[in-house]
Amino acid sequence: METQEKSGELDAFLRTAHLCADRAGAMILPHFRKNHDVDNKSSSEFDPVTEADRSAEAAIRELLGEHWPDHSVVGEEHDDHHGESAYNWVVDPIDGTRSFITGIPLWGTLIGLRHNTDPVLGLVDQPFLQERYWSDGASAFLRRPSGTTRISTRSCARIDQAFLTTTSPDLFGEGHERRCFAKLRDAVRMTRYGGDCYGYCMLTQGYFDIVLEAGLKLVDIIAIIPIVEAAGGRITDWKGNKVIDGGQVLATGDPELHQQVLELLNS
Amino acid sequence: METQEKSGELDAFLRTAHLCADRAGAMILPHFRKNHDVDNKSSSEFDPVTEADRSAEAAIRELLGEHWPDHSVVGEEHDDHHGESAYNWVVDPIDGTRSFITGIPLWGTLIGLRHNTDPVLGLVDQPFLQERYWSDGASAFLRRPSGTTRISTRSCARIDQAFLTTTSPDLFGEGHERRCFAKLRDAVRMTRYGGDCYGYCMLTQGYFDIVLEAGLKLVDIIAIIPIVEAAGGRITDWKGNKVIDGGQVLATGDPELHQQVLELLNS
Repeated sequence: METQEKSGELDAFLRTAHLCADRAGAMILPHFRKNHDVDNKSSSEFDPVTEADRSAEAAIRELLGEHWPDHSVVGEEHDDHHGESAYNWVVDPIDGTRSFITGIPLWGTLIGLRHNTDPVLGLVDQPFLQERYWSDGASAFLRRPSGTTRISTRSCARIDQAFLTTTSPDLFGEGHERRCFAKLRDAVRMTRYGGDCYGYCMLTQGYFDIVLEAGLKLVDIIAIIPIVEAAGGRITDWKGNKVIDGGQVLATGDPELHQQVLELLNS
Repeated sequence: METQEKSGELDAFLRTAHLCADRAGAMILPHFRKNHDVDNKSSSEFDPVTEADRSAEAAIRELLGEHWPDHSVVGEEHDDHHGESAYNWVVDPIDGTRSFITGIPLWGTLIGLRHNTDPVLGLVDQPFLQERYWSDGASAFLRRPSGTTRISTRSCARIDQAFLTTTSPDLFGEGHERRCFAKLRDAVRMTRYGGDCYGYCMLTQGYFDIVLEAGLKLVDIIAIIPIVEAAGGRITDWKGNKVIDGGQVLATGDPELHQQVLELLNS
């Protein structure tokens, strides 16, 4: 009985996540491939923030506040909202703003829900491609205009057969993280760059076998975790521990491969 | 009168290029995001070739042979066809096979036409995104389901304001080319990776300001050149010379920026 209630609750949360993505997509899409001002959020490094980003996050917060006023909300562009509940939403209206401002349709709207620090639901929306990825906590799904299908990672138990992706080699700096990345890049069959959240989406469909990233923020990864896991993959930090708040992330489609990559990274 | 005839001739060539892209797209698209065998074309390096690639090139060659039997044809997957005419087609059914096999929709069908070594027409088709870019020799166009529009590059006369893209930093090896790339990467406002032909497509719409690549093949670049030039950009090798058969390529949206980048690369 308790499980049924729990499941009904998750369904309701998921419906809200879809509503948020619908609303955000409608607000963001008109700004894609238009000329727009790019503010410089950070003084030391170029970090573009667009008006689309800010207004979509405000819209998502409004919806979450209406539906689940006691849930907390963490986003990238606005201050945190602290609710009484152990449930907390982690949202990034445009993950991949650099893709966004250069016309590349591989950015995504990320909506994740945690219970304390446990990710329980995740949704990635790419409204330009009309692709929506999500996990209901048990299975992973992709909705396209042609329909909704269950998605899963592929088997690939050997590093030398694996396809690796990461957003940018520049994520890894010039020190230890760079050497770890270089070891993995030299061991795999193929490495591709660019993609942000979209690399994980391709992993959940069995097109990539490994995503390796570093320096991620909480909002970059929470929505991703339940989708990767429900699709049959594994996602941890570079030591094999649970990803709590971003940082170093390793996702693999094949859990057997995960252990091998961890050993390589830590050898 | 001669100009009119010439223009009518180019129109006829362009219609053939569109036909070829239609045919190729219809053959390639069913294979995208399907499981497919990936052959290893090169023994030293991973270079995937798919059945889609081969069969689409055969279809393009068949159409070109029907319409312009005396034109030469150069492709990636089949032997060259040598005709009597000074016109020669340069085709790559799937530029970006690495994107193709990893589900990333940034590959393209490239169809270029040269008169001797002068590129005169170019077309890039991305059938999954339903985007087609081309030049009729005078203007550059983008066709989407919503309609066809003229496209143009944007002004950006300062390197420190420029957005740079390249397919992969691994293109540049570890020697001189890598140092040139690093100099440019350190000078620009932002660098993005991944994209193959799609980076140039975004440059012709004013989303990127610079594309820098090395080690390109003839078939990777000939279709691109007329589109970049007709959109208002400049495209040369890293010395400022005409691109004849691939190798090092620098494309800029703003011709003023071009000279500055050349000076930086050769300083």
